[in-house]
Amino acid sequence: MVYKKVTLIGTSGDSFEGAVDDAIQRAEMTLNNIHWLEVEEQGVELASVNDREYQVEVEVAFELEGSAE
Amino acid sequence: MVYKKVTLIGTSGDSFEGAVDDAIQRAEMTLNNIHWLEVEEQGVELASVNDREYQVEVEVAFELEGSAE
Amino acid sequence: MVYKKVTLIGTSGDSFEGAVDDAIQRAEMTLNNIHWLEVEEQGVELASVNDREYQVEVEVAFELEGSAE
Amino acid sequence: MVYKKVTLIGTSGDSFEGAVDDAIQRAEMTLNNIHWLEVEEQGVELASVNDREYQVEVEVAFELEGSAE
Amino acid sequence: MVYKKVTLIGTSGDSFEGAVDDAIQRAEMTLNNIHWLEVEEQGVELASVNDREYQVEVEVAFELEGSAE
Amino acid sequence: MVYKKVTLIGTSGDSFEGAVDDAIQRAEMTLNNIHWLEVEEQGVELASVNDREYQVEVEVAFELEGSAE
Amino acid sequence: MVYKKVTLIGTSGDSFEGAVDDAIQRAEMTLNNIHWLEVEEQGVELASVNDREYQVEVEVAFELEGSAE
Amino acid sequence: MVYKKVTLIGTSGDSFEGAVDDAIQRAEMTLNNIHWLEVEEQGVELASVNDREYQVEVEVAFELEGSAE
Amino acid sequence: MVYKKVTLIGTSGDSFEGAVDDAIQRAEMTLNNIHWLEVEEQGVELASVNDREYQVEVEVAFELEGSAE
Amino acid sequence: MVYKKVTLIGTSGDSFEGAVDDAIQRAEMTLNNIHWLEVEEQGVELASVNDREYQVEVEVAFELEGSAE
Amino acid sequence: MVYKKVTLIGTSGDSFEGAVDDAIQRAEMTLNNIHWLEVEEQGVELASVNDREYQVEVEVAFELEGSAE
Amino acid sequence: MVYKKVTLIGTSGDSFEGAVDDAIQRAEMTLNNIHWLEVEEQGVELASVNDREYQVEVEVAFELEGSAE
Repeated sequence: MVYKKVTLIGTSGDSFEGAVDDAIQRAEMTLNNIHWLEVEEQGVELASVNDREYQVEVEVAFELEGSAE
Repeated sequence: MVYKKVTLIGTSGDSFEGAVDDAIQRAEMTLNNIHWLEVEEQGVELASVNDREYQVEVEVAFELEGSAE
Repeated sequence: MVYKKVTLIGTSGDSFEGAVDDAIQRAEMTLNNIHWLEVEEQGVELASVNDREYQVEVEVAFELEGSAE
Repeated sequence: MVYKKVTLIGTSGDSFEGAVDDAIQRAEMTLNNIHWLEVEEQGVELASVNDREYQVEVEVAFELEGSAE
Repeated sequence: MVYKKVTLIGTSGDSFEGAVDDAIQRAEMTLNNIHWLEVEEQGVELASVNDREYQVEVEVAFELEGSAE
Repeated sequence: MVYKKVTLIGTSGDSFEGAVDDAIQRAEMTLNNIHWLEVEEQGVELASVNDREYQVEVEVAFELEGSAE
Repeated sequence: MVYKKVTLIGTSGDSFEGAVDDAIQRAEMTLNNIHWLEVEEQGVELASVNDREYQVEVEVAFELEGSAE
Repeated sequence: MVYKKVTLIGTSGDSFEGAVDDAIQRAEMTLNNIHWLEVEEQGVELASVNDREYQVEVEVAFELEGSAE
Repeated sequence: MVYKKVTLIGTSGDSFEGAVDDAIQRAEMTLNNIHWLEVEEQGVELASVNDREYQVEVEVAFELEGSAE
Repeated sequence: MVYKKVTLIGTSGDSFEGAVDDAIQRAEMTLNNIHWLEVEEQGVELASVNDREYQVEVEVAFELEGSAE
Repeated sequence: MVYKKVTLIGTSGDSFEGAVDDAIQRAEMTLNNIHWLEVEEQGVELASVNDREYQVEVEVAFELEGSAE
Repeated sequence: MVYKKVTLIGTSGDSFEGAVDDAIQRAEMTLNNIHWLEVEEQGVELASVNDREYQVEVEVAFELEGSAE
């Protein structure tokens, strides 16, 4: 059994959990067998958005199956 | 005055704050004089749970009294 | 264009996001052109408060203009 | 010349070298021109396996050729 | 569900895996519900032993049940 | 909005900036919407090249669109 | 032979060495076979004390014998 | 003698040295007695600029004199 | 309640505690409500001084009041 | 008593322990009084060797006697 | 095959690459078989020099032959 | 101008400053032009000594002259 980890940054106007969810939902569009994720960085963007944009960088770990990575 | 720190991982289906609370409530069952905690790691378990399980590793610092650690 | 970063610790009885907001609101009292912030540390104070005080240390980055830092 | 690094977690019931081999063999299924790997984390899973499962997280570096990454 | 982590250093005259095993066997004498461990440091003692003593510092994570930690 | 980060190592006989450029140009062959990159490591290879080969490991962040990662 | 490490924070009005001593003396009340300690963090508390309180977080390593941890 | 360190991020279209210079020149507008600086982070912004903007985060150390910090 | 942290480097011909004191005394000239400090780095300068100059880099945390930072 | 540490990278076609042994044997050719070593990095070279070359970077600590370092 | 790493700090009035070159040229005076170097720290000295002195700390790795280190 | 750094561990029965002094005095036996040192680790040995042995690992930086390193 081999896992692969990819690094995503999710964003949300509401909360850090919302930003994590954003990353998970995007990951689930193209990845099967997601097992867990680890939070790497948290931040808030203020200048280029209306109010606040929570940003969370996560490493998403999924099990690799027989074919394309 | 001497403090001791122990490392716990709390879990919650709702939020990172919920996972921290989970660890605090468990710590308060056996420890007196808890002073503060520090967040060490944050993650989300997806594979072995129904939806999402927020996990937070914390170091809980409490004041040691005269006896058992 | 030069940015400066200052380190603040916001506090909140409610959540980590509340603590971040506390730091942002204080920063906006004296700083213009805040662009983003990065979360450095998260913790919870228990001994010296009624219930729980969420604490978040952030680095706030703002654009320096011509004059006083 | 440009290299790309991907993060894999290999597993083995025998040893850390076995877990590294597991990751290399999986990587070689889809990647050409693997040059080296760096060990990032080592661990052992005990609860969900029969005996012990050695786990090693590695960064695998390979040379990118003209086309698809 | 709350996990606790304790830090042990196992030793072995044979290999790093042997040192990890040494820590696991000692942990299982007093802890139930061990789930996983993470390798923190690896070293070799040479001066105070006959040949070589492999040493591995690990964090052992186990599930806390209702009572004594 | 979700970003993904990939890790590349660019090389150049001239300078660290040249090595960064090398990684950017390769990334632009297959990735759209590159936003920024972060320098992770810098080194120089001497043994297997004629003179000096500057090497820079970077994390390239790009915005994920609807489809293939 | 297995060692265990526990994390203590000693305090002293005089010096960092005094704070380390404070932690050692407390550790020796309940632990046998202490071998060494490593300094993890050093700080000074000013607000809640008369003058200055030196604080040193240490990891104390002791040899585990046959029974209770 | 006491030094203070402030964190600046300089930017340049040309090179990392140019970005460092940008931070130094801005620092010299308001600070006397700058002694040295340390590079903390290096990056390149691509999305919001014409070509490439090198960014270097530095800690600038200067000697504090009798008055305002 | 919001804290701000500033980074100072104190120096002393006598000891690390002396260097910390040097930084505290300078900080108290312009800052009110200092709460604590954390030691970041310790060193000794030998070349440009008569004997030895102990240097300690500290982060000084103070409570921000309503006005100037 | 003063120790010195030197950094070596041992290599082996067989295992990480073999690579550590390789470094120890080379160190013992020119150093007396080796006390311990710490593992700093582990990797595997694949491109420039027949099969796999395990590489381990270690810091070797030895006691300095009266003369040449 | 065993490599040894030594830590040098090169300096240059012109650029970080110049400072790296300074370290390489000095290393080549006494070391054979240099294979690569890794950049550890970058800084700029301002107070004790005419204009700017770029400083780069590098770890230089060379292959050890049969005799003196 | 090129500096070299070597890693020493000084010991003292009295204090951390005493352990640093121990390393400096040993370094001055064989090295000229020592400029500064940086504290890397601090610890206390208890098991193999009469009372307490303070240990400090330092990196000693000295200016390289024309010849032997």
